[in-house]
Amino acid sequence: MDYQARQEQLQRALGQHRLDAIVVTHLPNIRYLCGFTGSAGVLLLAPSHSLFFSDGRYKEQARAEVKGAAVVIGTRPALIAAAEWLATKGRKIKVLGIESEHLTVAERQQLAKSAGRGVRVREAPPLVEQARAVKDPLEIDSLRAAARLGANLFKVALKTIRPGIKEVEVAAEMEYAARQAGAEGMSFGTIIASGERSALPHGRATSAVIPRQGFVVCDFGVILAGYCSDMTRTVHVNTPSAKARHIYCAVREAQQAAIEAVRAGVRIERVHAAARKVLNRKRLVQYFTHSTGHGVGLEIHEAPRIAAAQTEPLRAGMVITIEPGVYVPGFGGVRIEDMVAVTERGYQILTPTSKELIEL
Amino acid sequence: MDYQARQEQLQRALGQHRLDAIVVTHLPNIRYLCGFTGSAGVLLLAPSHSLFFSDGRYKEQARAEVKGAAVVIGTRPALIAAAEWLATKGRKIKVLGIESEHLTVAERQQLAKSAGRGVRVREAPPLVEQARAVKDPLEIDSLRAAARLGANLFKVALKTIRPGIKEVEVAAEMEYAARQAGAEGMSFGTIIASGERSALPHGRATSAVIPRQGFVVCDFGVILAGYCSDMTRTVHVNTPSAKARHIYCAVREAQQAAIEAVRAGVRIERVHAAARKVLNRKRLVQYFTHSTGHGVGLEIHEAPRIAAAQTEPLRAGMVITIEPGVYVPGFGGVRIEDMVAVTERGYQILTPTSKELIEL
Repeated sequence: MDYQARQEQLQRALGQHRLDAIVVTHLPNIRYLCGFTGSAGVLLLAPSHSLFFSDGRYKEQARAEVKGAAVVIGTRPALIAAAEWLATKGRKIKVLGIESEHLTVAERQQLAKSAGRGVRVREAPPLVEQARAVKDPLEIDSLRAAARLGANLFKVALKTIRPGIKEVEVAAEMEYAARQAGAEGMSFGTIIASGERSALPHGRATSAVIPRQGFVVCDFGVILAGYCSDMTRTVHVNTPSAKARHIYCAVREAQQAAIEAVRAGVRIERVHAAARKVLNRKRLVQYFTHSTGHGVGLEIHEAPRIAAAQTEPLRAGMVITIEPGVYVPGFGGVRIEDMVAVTERGYQILTPTSKELIEL
Repeated sequence: MDYQARQEQLQRALGQHRLDAIVVTHLPNIRYLCGFTGSAGVLLLAPSHSLFFSDGRYKEQARAEVKGAAVVIGTRPALIAAAEWLATKGRKIKVLGIESEHLTVAERQQLAKSAGRGVRVREAPPLVEQARAVKDPLEIDSLRAAARLGANLFKVALKTIRPGIKEVEVAAEMEYAARQAGAEGMSFGTIIASGERSALPHGRATSAVIPRQGFVVCDFGVILAGYCSDMTRTVHVNTPSAKARHIYCAVREAQQAAIEAVRAGVRIERVHAAARKVLNRKRLVQYFTHSTGHGVGLEIHEAPRIAAAQTEPLRAGMVITIEPGVYVPGFGGVRIEDMVAVTERGYQILTPTSKELIEL
């Protein structure tokens, strides 16, 4: 990864926002900018400085991982160490940007107190998140590899799902296979939602037993080399009713329509609208209660949101999920989700898995 | 769990801190106070009101889980919904406490903006964290059950660890067994640190291969019914050298000394000092680079910290870890950790696992 170029891009943006420096505290942003993968550190970036602060626990790791920044190992928490550096050696920095969505009220106070009166703390726009939304080719490769590993877990699910088995047992088999295949972990709590529970959009695997008949929503992802995958498939245990088939086909058609709306330059809300239009025609849109998708990368949820009122254009290199769903209370639900890379001329689907309705 | 009593305790504390209400945003605190286990919600507590705000995704779950609070389901994010309630129906609330360690700078702004000028936002002390530090008997039962399940995973580790196998494979077997046994997940990323890596206090399982000779630190925990377990055992592959034996015995003795210092009323720093005293005598204290332990409950790390300069007394019902370690760079490390409940007369060890040195 070209950490130097990423830092330089941010350094140039500082001037445009009238900031002398920014203190980056959100760990995925730190990883993006300098490669550090540990869980305690702060990156202080000014046009003339790039300093990474951490403590003794991360001394070896920081020296091995951090690129493009000087490593400062201290005995105090990293945020305090950065503030004290500003108060002593960094006196030319008068206006300091913070990541207001990732700094707590208490941390802001500690920072301001330790930095002293010479520093004015100001909220910076989400500059790193905006940069991260567009992936470079190496990142897209990483996301494709994560998506492939994730897709293999669906095969494990298909072998495991049967009436009488618990949802958590399906999740356990999938997570075991993920670890065996080299995943660092799951990118979120595995969702296995069966029968009426499939109508819960956030139905994490529970000790509920898979019933003899009905949908099973499987929504899961892995972390591989830091990058997250995210996919959903919905299968049906036993023969689906006409209503179940109607719902499945409608969601599949909506998902396809949304994917086909993806292209660099398209307003993001139009992708969401494409999914809604199909479900509206099928008289199911009232059961589609969430957004169509989200960016995915070092975090499972990142910019952009694929939702109504998002008037920004898609940009080539964005990697997003497309995941419309229909949830009928007391009956069941269907969601189908792929990871999609935005290209100049359209899209590339990163999830290599069929969307035919599978009956188990 | 007696949610009513927990809320009443907090309601009484509000007056003492000159707050008309508190907006609880930290999810473990919300769970502790009203039972909600989902991932989006806000609890607004005043002496005369207890309101839980969430959105449509959590409608059914909130109604099923929330006790002692009225459930308000809206279309806006919960924090905004709570602020708008204050601006319209809650006009008697003039001074609103926030959890400054759990609210971002951006959230505080949104809250203040939506609540309007009639509400003064003030930082509350960590009242819920303080209450949570002392567990009631049902919570101690839950923690004991989690500790037992966790301890069974060590047996899985013993069966799996051998030279040539990857650390992540050991972690995979343990995590699989945890899921099969009903755990909701792991309480943190499983640490399997072998050979020289055992000298890294935070050595999460990697694709490194377990060497023919040396220590393997196994630090892991599960979440069971919401409560976290945490334990560490260090085993040795092949016959340990005299130096390795010396280190192991010293850590074991330090851990025992710290446990024996536990009793209600004892200043917390004395528990830490007891471990350090032993390691000092063994000329190893310079390699003991972290604190002795931490509270454990709904979160893996919670109050109190078992460290230097903690002059508060231990209280009966606290559940803490005791986990001294020695890390010799380039050689290896040893950590031994139990969960311990503080009682009036001493302690009760919740981790049912021998601390004899095991050679594999």
